[in-house]
Parts: sequence; structure tokens; C-alpha cells
Amino acid sequence: MDERVREHAAVLVDWSARVEEGDDVVLSVGPDAHELAVAVAEKLGERGANLLATYGSGEVTRAYLRAHEGDFDENPAHERALLEESDVYLSIGGGRNTSATADVPGETRQAYRSARTEIREARYDTRWVSTIHPTRSLAQQANMAYEAYQEFAYDAILRDWESLAAEMARLKELLDEGSEVRLVSDDTDLTMSIENRTAVNSAASVAYDSHNLPSGEVFTAPAATEGEVAFDVPMTLRGEAVRDVHLTFEDGAVVDYAAEQGEDVIGDILDTDEGARRLGELGIGMNRGIDRYTDNILFDEKMGETVHLAVGRAYDACLPEGESGNDSAVHVDMITDVSEGSQLEIDGEVVQRNGRFRWEDDFEQ
Amino acid sequence: MDERVREHAAVLVDWSARVEEGDDVVLSVGPDAHELAVAVAEKLGERGANLLATYGSGEVTRAYLRAHEGDFDENPAHERALLEESDVYLSIGGGRNTSATADVPGETRQAYRSARTEIREARYDTRWVSTIHPTRSLAQQANMAYEAYQEFAYDAILRDWESLAAEMARLKELLDEGSEVRLVSDDTDLTMSIENRTAVNSAASVAYDSHNLPSGEVFTAPAATEGEVAFDVPMTLRGEAVRDVHLTFEDGAVVDYAAEQGEDVIGDILDTDEGARRLGELGIGMNRGIDRYTDNILFDEKMGETVHLAVGRAYDACLPEGESGNDSAVHVDMITDVSEGSQLEIDGEVVQRNGRFRWEDDFEQ
Repeated sequence: MDERVREHAAVLVDWSARVEEGDDVVLSVGPDAHELAVAVAEKLGERGANLLATYGSGEVTRAYLRAHEGDFDENPAHERALLEESDVYLSIGGGRNTSATADVPGETRQAYRSARTEIREARYDTRWVSTIHPTRSLAQQANMAYEAYQEFAYDAILRDWESLAAEMARLKELLDEGSEVRLVSDDTDLTMSIENRTAVNSAASVAYDSHNLPSGEVFTAPAATEGEVAFDVPMTLRGEAVRDVHLTFEDGAVVDYAAEQGEDVIGDILDTDEGARRLGELGIGMNRGIDRYTDNILFDEKMGETVHLAVGRAYDACLPEGESGNDSAVHVDMITDVSEGSQLEIDGEVVQRNGRFRWEDDFEQ
Repeated sequence: MDERVREHAAVLVDWSARVEEGDDVVLSVGPDAHELAVAVAEKLGERGANLLATYGSGEVTRAYLRAHEGDFDENPAHERALLEESDVYLSIGGGRNTSATADVPGETRQAYRSARTEIREARYDTRWVSTIHPTRSLAQQANMAYEAYQEFAYDAILRDWESLAAEMARLKELLDEGSEVRLVSDDTDLTMSIENRTAVNSAASVAYDSHNLPSGEVFTAPAATEGEVAFDVPMTLRGEAVRDVHLTFEDGAVVDYAAEQGEDVIGDILDTDEGARRLGELGIGMNRGIDRYTDNILFDEKMGETVHLAVGRAYDACLPEGESGNDSAVHVDMITDVSEGSQLEIDGEVVQRNGRFRWEDDFEQ
């Protein structure tokens, strides 16, 4: 076995999920993620945790959903009981076709999702972490050769997380103390209120309220957004290519939108509900192991020298106790490259310029 | 998709497990059983059942067990809750190496098994069915080419089960009414009491107390065994080849044993506990779709024109209410070919001679 697979498993189990003896662990395994599943199982055995492996296959899900009439039972008792009794939920994505569920009708998808709210909540109540095993299918999605993609993925995953967490803590502190963020770049001049909001130092560990591996971003929940923003990192949304989205905000909500490609998809997303026109997230990518776009949001939004914004639902962790943030059925991230001609200000002070933070040696005053 | 895979799924879901709308179903998927899992998911969707897929990988289990110190938690709550809330448990075997767990120490295996008694019982309380997807690894174990093995497997699985159930009902009736069975063949002359025992018409459906697909055997729980028996169908037990086992019974228990190959394994099994020296099962194979030995007990014991006996645990379904049959930690089947020079008598009457039953046209009076 490639030693990096074992290292990935160790990061996932020890750093990310903080697995301890006696933990009841669900391990969701993608059809092509077998090798990492074996390495994780070994690590869980060493820790004395209790392992149940589930099968996370898009093709199985597609076959089931397309055959079903659509009147899904609410929160099936067996799956709900499993998750309610679990301490840890580890998901290892990795199949043979990232478009495996592309022909499942949207209404079926939505009905299935709606019927499983409590199951999803039970999963979010565990120490859950999502990661991927670098597969050929993910390499293809990234337009990369397999071995090059493996190197890319492990560069992103096998980081010095403690050191990155320490650096990200600096930005979190500035955001927590700040009231207003302004992002200025080509075609972008956007201000957002972050008053009373708490940023998450997303250091790929449940100990940091962070549930993705890789991670490496600091994010918060903005409000009262004003101005315009352009997203120049391409992405696939709902199976369609989306390029160069441009949004205009007034009084916190999108009042105008455009895109070079995929404008219809953006329109559909914004029309989902009222919250879909407001921001749920402002995130600053700080993982410099991720140095290119691979059309996989798990990686793209953490890319060093990028900023992303999500329309839709805000994360509870960013909100004052008892206060609800932007509510929506969607949460769609869009990304902008800030490595050139760009600056990020907090309360009028430049924190990042051309991708460099003010605590870095090459930050231009 | 090969149409036989869809037919297999239909037999499993409809005939075997009798899945109904609203059933909470666990589908355990072997790493190479993906295609059948997709077909089963489609069928479960059509039926309006609720699907949770688990991953049944020998390599994952091996990694976990070998890394664990061996002090396993008793019946982990998450897996137990899952099974207690499930109506149906479908297991689709099929990996890439039938010896995947060969180097897990016996004591580890035993400790893991012992710690999971209640989980196992909860699974047996569902409408559970075990089947396999014909894989290259199973073909190899059978010493067969892949396509030939597929044909073999589907011949065994895609039978007219109603018709076979009707034929097996005849034998069940004779066994239920009978008091003593005698098996006579080369090197074999064995008598067993079947007084007050109920035979199972194992027609590959939970409706018949039958949990294997394929099935096609009638079995009961014998007692007071006397005489000797030779098993000429080769098999692999605990990873070792076993050939031509010969057992001698007195007062219901094995008093002497021998084997051309694997005699040590037989000795170890018989020494497990007191019940391991007594019979737990007499089974008569009636699935003529299975016409050759493939070193897979799921198929071999149902082979037409064979009889098998198991030392160890008896099935509750064969026993009068409240009565316990032979108890043991093991249940090991051994098989003898009865197609030539052989007869099976119930209370002195010949029921089967040279593999033919007395209701068949070519039965020799």
C-alpha cells in the first residue's frame, strides 16, 4: 500500500475525527475508495473503536431513486437509529464516475433529501468528517493524469495542520473582532457586515468545528451585503459548467446576476427561496497545498489565495447562540482568485493584498 | 447490465426476502458485487422499501481485526440499533480474494464473534437472506472460467423455486412423519433418530424458513447417531483442503475420525466443545442446477444427489417448541455424493436410491 494512503488514514482518524477507544464509528466507503477504507479500518482497530462500514455508491443511489415512486418514508428508523447511536461518521468519497447520479430528476432528489432531515441532523450531531480517496474519476474531473492528481490530493491533505491552524487563527481573530469586510478586485467591490459573527478556523478537524479533509479556510457568515462581485474560478454546478458569474447586491440580497456560461443554473439557484439570494458564507482559502482548480468544491474552496462566497444557508457555528442566520435549502459556493489586483479589508485595514496576508514577509504595505 | 443480474435481484427481493413497501432494508455489498447491488437497489426502489447499503469487505475486516488488541466492545450500540430496527438484511457476497481474512488469528476471530452475539441475533431476527454475486474470485475458487462460472451460478439461482419447493415438500413430509433415517453407501452405514423433529423445506425464501440463495435442500436435526459415514465431496475448511473424511458414531457422538487430507482440521473442529462431536444437521441436496462441486458451501450443500451432515449446532426451526437441540459454537457441513451405490431410508423404506427419489420416473424399485 502507498504510504500516503496510510498517512491519509492517520490524519482522518486522529487529527480530523479525534477517534477514541470505544467510539462507535460509521465509515462510508465509495466504490473506488477501498484502499483508503482498508487503511482507515486498520487505524480504527488500533484505536479500539467500533467499525461499521457503509457503501456510498452514486450508482446504487441512482438506481434506487429512479425506481422509487417518490413518496419516500420519513427518516427510516434503521438508518436513523444507526446515526443516533454513532459517535463518528467518516465519509470517503471516490467512485468511477462523478456524474453517476446526473439523470436523477431534481424533484426526486429534493423529495429524498426532504424526507431525511432528521437522519442528516443525526449525522451532523456526530464528529463527522468528509474526505475523498484520489480516484481516476476525480483525476478526470480535474483534467489531470492519475498520478499527478494523487500528488495534488496528498499535497492538500497531508499538511502540517497544526501550523496551518495557528496561521488561520490570526485571520479568525481579525474577523471575530471586525465589523465590516470589503473585497476589492477586478469587477468586484463588495462590503459585508460581520458584526457579532464568529469565524471558523477550518483546520480539517472536529476540534475546530471543521468537517472537511482537506480543509484550510477561515469562514464566517456575512450579512447586509452591498456591491458587486465577480467569480472567475470555473465550476460545475448541478452537472453544468458555470463560468464568470457576476452578482450585484443591494440591501443584502442579489438584485442582478449574469454569467458567461451557466446563467440559467445560477438563476435557478437564486430562485430556490428567499435565503438563496442572500449570502450564507464568506470564506478565505488558505491551503496553499491546493494550487489549482480541480472542479471539486472540497478542494477548490480551500485553495490558497482565493476567496469564496456562498449564497444560501449559513453555518450555525458562525452565529451568536440562539440567533439564526440566513436560512435556505441551498448553499452554493462560488470562488474568486485574489492572487492579483485584489485586496481584502477588515474595518478599512488591508488584511490580504494580492493573495498575501499582512503577517507574511512578501505582503506589500 | 446482464439480464441475469436483474433476474437475480428480483428473485432475492421478491421470492427470497418478500420485501414490501416500507420495509427497512440493510443491503450488505461485497467489494466486487457492485453490479448486483445496483440491480437490487432498483428493485428495492420499485417496492418502496428503505435502503441502507453496508460494505462487506473481507480486507476491511482483516485490517480492523489484525490491528485491534482483541478486547472488543460487546455489541456496539450503533450496529445493534441498525439491525434491531431493520426488517430485512440482504447480504451479497463477492470480493476479489476468498482468502482475504486467512491471516486473522483464530482467537481474534473468536473474540470478535463472541462480542457480537446480540448483533448476530438481531440480524437473525430480520428476514435475512445470503447470496453471492458471481465474481472472478469465486470462479477461481471453483476452478472454473469466469463465464462458465456465471452460467453455473445463475443455473443454481434462477430456478423455478415454486416447483422445487413443491417437490421438496414431499421429502419434508416423509421426514416429519418418520422416526429414523438410514444412509447406506460405500463406507457408509449410518442411522439417526429424527423423532419429533421438523424438516425445513429450504426453498430459498424466508417464507420457508430458508435464508440462502441459492438453496434447494431439505434439512432436519438428527439425534442418537450410530454407525459410520464417509464424505467424498472435497472442501476447504478454515483455509485448508479437506478430503475423504470418515466419522464413526456411537451413542450419538463421534468416537473415531480419519481423513485423507486435513485430518488435523477435523480434529480441531470436533474438539471445539461437546456439541461439536454430535450432529446438528442432516440435509438432502435437491438443487439439480448445482451439478458440480465449487468449494463454496452456499452451493455445494444444495447440490442435487448429495447428502450432507453437519457436526455442531442444530437449527431451532427443526426442533419442537421450547426444546433445545444440539448446542455448539460450530456448525460444519460435510458432503457425500449419493448418485451411485447409495440409498436413503426412512423407517426402513427407501426414499432415494442412486440419487433418484421414489416419486421420480427413473427411480429403481
